[in-house]
Amino acid sequence: MRPAIITLTTDFGTADHYVGEMKGVILSMAPRAAIVDITHEIPAHDVMEAGWVLRHACGAFPRGSVHVAVVDPGVGTSRRPIIAKAAGRWFVGPDNGIFAWVFAEHPPSEIRLLTSARRISATFHGRDLFAPAAARLASGKAAASLGPKIKRWLRLEIPRPEKLRRGRMRATVIHVDRFGNVILNLTREEIAAMGGLARGARMTLLAGRRRVSHHVRTYAQIPAGGVATLINSAGHLELAGNCARADRKLGVARGKTIDMRIE
Amino acid sequence: MRPAIITLTTDFGTADHYVGEMKGVILSMAPRAAIVDITHEIPAHDVMEAGWVLRHACGAFPRGSVHVAVVDPGVGTSRRPIIAKAAGRWFVGPDNGIFAWVFAEHPPSEIRLLTSARRISATFHGRDLFAPAAARLASGKAAASLGPKIKRWLRLEIPRPEKLRRGRMRATVIHVDRFGNVILNLTREEIAAMGGLARGARMTLLAGRRRVSHHVRTYAQIPAGGVATLINSAGHLELAGNCARADRKLGVARGKTIDMRIE
Amino acid sequence: MRPAIITLTTDFGTADHYVGEMKGVILSMAPRAAIVDITHEIPAHDVMEAGWVLRHACGAFPRGSVHVAVVDPGVGTSRRPIIAKAAGRWFVGPDNGIFAWVFAEHPPSEIRLLTSARRISATFHGRDLFAPAAARLASGKAAASLGPKIKRWLRLEIPRPEKLRRGRMRATVIHVDRFGNVILNLTREEIAAMGGLARGARMTLLAGRRRVSHHVRTYAQIPAGGVATLINSAGHLELAGNCARADRKLGVARGKTIDMRIE
Repeated sequence: MRPAIITLTTDFGTADHYVGEMKGVILSMAPRAAIVDITHEIPAHDVMEAGWVLRHACGAFPRGSVHVAVVDPGVGTSRRPIIAKAAGRWFVGPDNGIFAWVFAEHPPSEIRLLTSARRISATFHGRDLFAPAAARLASGKAAASLGPKIKRWLRLEIPRPEKLRRGRMRATVIHVDRFGNVILNLTREEIAAMGGLARGARMTLLAGRRRVSHHVRTYAQIPAGGVATLINSAGHLELAGNCARADRKLGVARGKTIDMRIE
Repeated sequence: MRPAIITLTTDFGTADHYVGEMKGVILSMAPRAAIVDITHEIPAHDVMEAGWVLRHACGAFPRGSVHVAVVDPGVGTSRRPIIAKAAGRWFVGPDNGIFAWVFAEHPPSEIRLLTSARRISATFHGRDLFAPAAARLASGKAAASLGPKIKRWLRLEIPRPEKLRRGRMRATVIHVDRFGNVILNLTREEIAAMGGLARGARMTLLAGRRRVSHHVRTYAQIPAGGVATLINSAGHLELAGNCARADRKLGVARGKTIDMRIE
Repeated sequence: MRPAIITLTTDFGTADHYVGEMKGVILSMAPRAAIVDITHEIPAHDVMEAGWVLRHACGAFPRGSVHVAVVDPGVGTSRRPIIAKAAGRWFVGPDNGIFAWVFAEHPPSEIRLLTSARRISATFHGRDLFAPAAARLASGKAAASLGPKIKRWLRLEIPRPEKLRRGRMRATVIHVDRFGNVILNLTREEIAAMGGLARGARMTLLAGRRRVSHHVRTYAQIPAGGVATLINSAGHLELAGNCARADRKLGVARGKTIDMRIE
């Protein structure tokens, strides 16, 4: 049997003892699990960013993997701890919208309210509730033993591109990566449907201080010092620079909108 | 048999090759060991901080785990390399006080002076001495084969709360975490013994620029923009902010003292 | 059989989903592989720095280990993806000089052009090409099945110390580590051959603003506030400070040259 995989996505950073505690709990209960850090560098309390990163990482893992996500400013309050099955994988974390990006693409087939027989802390459910649940799922325990089925989950609105007049679109910056690449909420399919990827078509983005109409296939094709668009490895439209961060060149950040025109 | 666990706590950072070298040595000797990073982000040479983080992480791991800690400004000098057994776990590192927090709670039942038959570097005992020792312990080798028993270890003083006149206490900030939460050397038990958690009692902390007398159970109960105290997941008194770092709001940092009054 | 080891060295950082995707791909194909992060903190696009860190980490891993290195500004262009065998280990990555440091010491006995039957992205060969190849090698697949043998690889020039007149050497700073230690491209053997480590010999380095002629064996022997040279754990000459970063004290950075005189 292949070892079970448990991934972790949190805003805990890597300087404190929090991630170590979660891993200690997991390995105490599921000693053979392979624990994989997706990231612990989510900005503090940024639920949407965690969901975005997890959505793009989880698809690479095999079915049956258990994905724990803990960005949890409401820990200990009435927000519910859940486990959910979607796309053949388990998701474990607070019901605060952290799985919105995943569920938008893969509606969950089963959601359960996580319950605990033990007395747990009011401030660290990552260690006391989510890690044990993940370890149980990874050990092959039935999901039914972890809590009752529920029907609703918090549906956080994820930003969608907006159609403007005369074939224009208004997109939103949903992520800026380590290289300063600016990723938009526009997929290859959406752009193709608008004719933007057709031969002879020309896309122009009004991005911050600049007008960008150069579209390339690889980073190396971006003119030195310039900014261009490309379809990135996740299938999204991305503004990227050559030897320079596109976000700084353009003066844009996550959450900003960028208008696009196709001619 | 469950795979052995070896945890690492260092000030090496994650940008250099030092941690990779330690892991390579461990996996060469103990190929099935599960290596877990507690943290490598301890501030350079900060022995006490390493000890604090390790003390709070190690309890979550199962008995038999091997905890390596390397913050070692005296590497290659007369400071002794040791292995110690405490609370059913092994601790491997320099005898420079790095285990003071652990040993204060769990006095070691056995300490050995680590010796090496090989020629080793004068500047990287993490790779040449501690990693091999951890791998041997994880592989089930007898501790006696690693060096002779010794009786003394360096007892670094850990900061204790100080009783002032008229029921006041002077506590010390022992850790500031990624969220800016300010953790004090006062435990739930110590505060309860002073009556601070009794119904109707009121704790007031004179913390930097502010007077804090709001005590809550969860982070979400802290008034927006405010600072409150809570008992954190490690059982310590913590000053925390809501959507703001408490350390910056209060202007306090690790090592600062904070006076507390209970009425 | 011992689990296969796959190490990762990239400039992806740990905040995005890129590393997680690579690990998901690897574990999907080689579920028992032990994945070890060397580092993901290589400065963006810094091929030489990646090669330097990998060269110093890889030697600690057992023969048969698979080392993946992805700092790949030319991804998707004509730069070739390769696998290479050197010193009994596998190296997987772009043929852009990233293995120059390793190959300078251990000339590869076999190099293959990595080919893929699948359609892959133009921008993320780490996930689509290198991770699958590493997983195949780790699973015991024959290297011949991954692509045809080639004879040439990109030989990036690595900085060598330069002999000046009258027994002087001009060295280059090849790495600055987390502690601010300044590592030069001069090995113990090279310095010994110049007589620099002989009894009574005196090495003087003209480093930035300072003249350094104190040579020590351990960090603790450096006078407080001072800077000295030592032979570090990798066998290189290093400028180190005591309780202070040598790089800042001296005002030097990677790539700078430093002259040395032996008397």
